[in-house]
Amino acid sequence: MSKKFFLQEKDIPTAWYNIIPSMPTKPRPLLNPATKKPLSAEDLYPLFSEEASRQEMNVTDSWIEIPEAVRDIYKIWRPTPLVRASGLEKALGTNCHIYFKNESVSPVGSHKLNSAIPQAYYCKQQGVTNITTETGAGQWGAALSLASRMFGIELAVYMVKVSYHQKPYRRSIMQTYGAEVVASPSMSTKAGRRIITEHPNHQGSLGTAISEAVELAMSTPNCKYALGSVLNHVALHQTVIGLEAEKQMEMAGEYPDVVIGCFGGGSNFSGIAFPFMRHNLAGDKNTLFIAAEPSSCPKLTRGVMQYDFGDEAGYTPLIPMLTLGHNFAPANIHAGGLRYHGAGSVVSQLKCDGLMDAVDIPQLESFEAATIFAKSEGIIPAPESAHAIAAAIRQARQADEEGRSKVILFNLSGHGLIDMTAYDRYFAGDLANYEVSDSEVAANTAGLEKLI
Amino acid sequence: MSKKFFLQEKDIPTAWYNIIPSMPTKPRPLLNPATKKPLSAEDLYPLFSEEASRQEMNVTDSWIEIPEAVRDIYKIWRPTPLVRASGLEKALGTNCHIYFKNESVSPVGSHKLNSAIPQAYYCKQQGVTNITTETGAGQWGAALSLASRMFGIELAVYMVKVSYHQKPYRRSIMQTYGAEVVASPSMSTKAGRRIITEHPNHQGSLGTAISEAVELAMSTPNCKYALGSVLNHVALHQTVIGLEAEKQMEMAGEYPDVVIGCFGGGSNFSGIAFPFMRHNLAGDKNTLFIAAEPSSCPKLTRGVMQYDFGDEAGYTPLIPMLTLGHNFAPANIHAGGLRYHGAGSVVSQLKCDGLMDAVDIPQLESFEAATIFAKSEGIIPAPESAHAIAAAIRQARQADEEGRSKVILFNLSGHGLIDMTAYDRYFAGDLANYEVSDSEVAANTAGLEKLI
Repeated sequence: MSKKFFLQEKDIPTAWYNIIPSMPTKPRPLLNPATKKPLSAEDLYPLFSEEASRQEMNVTDSWIEIPEAVRDIYKIWRPTPLVRASGLEKALGTNCHIYFKNESVSPVGSHKLNSAIPQAYYCKQQGVTNITTETGAGQWGAALSLASRMFGIELAVYMVKVSYHQKPYRRSIMQTYGAEVVASPSMSTKAGRRIITEHPNHQGSLGTAISEAVELAMSTPNCKYALGSVLNHVALHQTVIGLEAEKQMEMAGEYPDVVIGCFGGGSNFSGIAFPFMRHNLAGDKNTLFIAAEPSSCPKLTRGVMQYDFGDEAGYTPLIPMLTLGHNFAPANIHAGGLRYHGAGSVVSQLKCDGLMDAVDIPQLESFEAATIFAKSEGIIPAPESAHAIAAAIRQARQADEEGRSKVILFNLSGHGLIDMTAYDRYFAGDLANYEVSDSEVAANTAGLEKLI
Repeated sequence: MSKKFFLQEKDIPTAWYNIIPSMPTKPRPLLNPATKKPLSAEDLYPLFSEEASRQEMNVTDSWIEIPEAVRDIYKIWRPTPLVRASGLEKALGTNCHIYFKNESVSPVGSHKLNSAIPQAYYCKQQGVTNITTETGAGQWGAALSLASRMFGIELAVYMVKVSYHQKPYRRSIMQTYGAEVVASPSMSTKAGRRIITEHPNHQGSLGTAISEAVELAMSTPNCKYALGSVLNHVALHQTVIGLEAEKQMEMAGEYPDVVIGCFGGGSNFSGIAFPFMRHNLAGDKNTLFIAAEPSSCPKLTRGVMQYDFGDEAGYTPLIPMLTLGHNFAPANIHAGGLRYHGAGSVVSQLKCDGLMDAVDIPQLESFEAATIFAKSEGIIPAPESAHAIAAAIRQARQADEEGRSKVILFNLSGHGLIDMTAYDRYFAGDLANYEVSDSEVAANTAGLEKLI
């Protein structure tokens, strides 16, 4: 049966790993959209906590200390187990060794809490009383709701309207932790009112929800905004995943040939990948890194590298990203957390430099993989995480065909116990694959100048 | 922040603890309802696996070895953490030390897998190809679905109709693991047809679902029935909870003054309590044991001790139990797993002998406790487990009033992530308390002779 590798509390990392100092090409800076001038950490202070802003701009320190108060809360569920997926291996009949890092054991069921805790902590430290954020499927919103509660901060979450109605359980979870949850687009912001007025039946998008959350934060005293993916400081916080996994792979006596994470904006992929990637960058290892994105939102495999906004209304700084365009409307797949138009600047640069790879997974393949995994490992994966499982299965099958045995590590970013409607629809044959046409990508990315 | 106490895989118990040999008064035997003669293990073979039947009747061996194959699967999620609930202590402002054993970390979100795995294993060992069972809220059904899948056995689950419709996520989980789920009462059995014919809109009960599952098992070749609570062998399997907790309390350098579990049929209460109770029975300790049942189904606090059926149709052996009568219809509270008319024979005897205590918790108090716990410890508890939390809070407050500091341990039997509808209704003010009248108890328990 599947063997677990446990760490002790003392093994929770004491510092996050910042990959930027080791990158051969540094990511281009964030730009002020009006002046097109590079932004400084100070320029971000109105939006984010000061420490998060400084971390966002930190290109010199490879290790950034994790505050003791944050490590203390990490202890609620960390260190998370690393599991040798013997059940999955047997189900596939593969000669590969497959491991997964189980981030689904957090109280909110996903890795998102790794960044929610420090973001809330840094806000608390500087006396912030209110935070705003957005959420798609609700994983990030649930995590920040809990984190805000733990530091006694009020939170308002703009939840994409279609998810607000389709995923009532995640909404309830946020409310149980005491957060205010608003269906987006809403009448509470200019950005929301404009969209509702133009499209009365608009079902919302992550880009719009971000616009609303940013607008509310900017217009509310003592209020900051927090984002659950895309940005450098979020990826930084998530590196606890890979740092723990590194020690656990040592316990297992192996080193991964392939490291895989599903990909929305980059937070869980970066978290599992960057600590291992530092050995590639140092020339000591030659691991393959694969980001698994949905075919319906293929920013890494088919997007263009350009400066783009992080939100729909254009409130955010310009970010250098592999993007499908900030007005790209992804199909309504059940992996709501992967429905985002762009990749963070670090991952985008690494991808352009050939230091990592990406694959796109059709929705039906992701659920097929999820079902194999559930039956063989016992854990029902989140639809997002199912993309990583599908990519791992592809890798194992390819290695078997080539007569090789690989060590494959993927991140199980969350469980799917609150996504059972999606499974129901899959079993009923109601789910489809969605293709994105070249002309759709071209139309949405025509606005800004390509960077490469 | 709340400190966790971790064990290693090697610390998973190698034997279950059977409390019966140490009991001052042994429970009365199961009876054949027709002849009123005591049953032997062999008499149970048509219904249960042979090993489960032998365990059910074992009154001589204090320790029963856990098969290596079962321990191997336990490793998927065991050992589970023991947590010092510092967040809850702070929220209460108590001087007590509160600990909880976190059984919610299993892949199905509850302790039920502890018995589902060995029950499925023993069936597989003797070549059984099909299992039937019943489920209320779906915790047991989900656990046995996964366990059956792991041993390649087909499973049919009769799910109480009201839960089948109100808790579609748990139904989906069972189906994802490959089980067949039937809303009970159904037309597939005589017991179901009779009820549907007499009451066309019958919403089902655990007692009826058991009748249907037993009937199908008895009339299907190579098919056995499995039960998730009440019986001795189920309580036996659950003692892994308390045995691990014992070691973990040692790590914490404390011994509990009070041990608490919520109470439906007795499986999770017995699991956490019996290993500690053996030190009371040996005269070495004087711990208080509290079973927390819902006010709407108060078998321990207000039931009578008599022989009764385990199911509605009267297919099961007669069990000596504290019971509200097998036709008692509990109010439709959200703690579906606690809506059962009787207590297992061992717990019933212990309660009658004054070796343990019980409290009844109104529904609103359970949700108030659940919300305090969610906000302070981060984990949203199952509505069932919330009863144990409420009892722990009562104990802490009482000790504070008396100027004492107690060490309180309770079992968090499961998480509530799939029960968010219940929380929604609680926050909306739609939930009520339910009282049971003395005349209702008397009417339902008038049938059989009192044992004490």
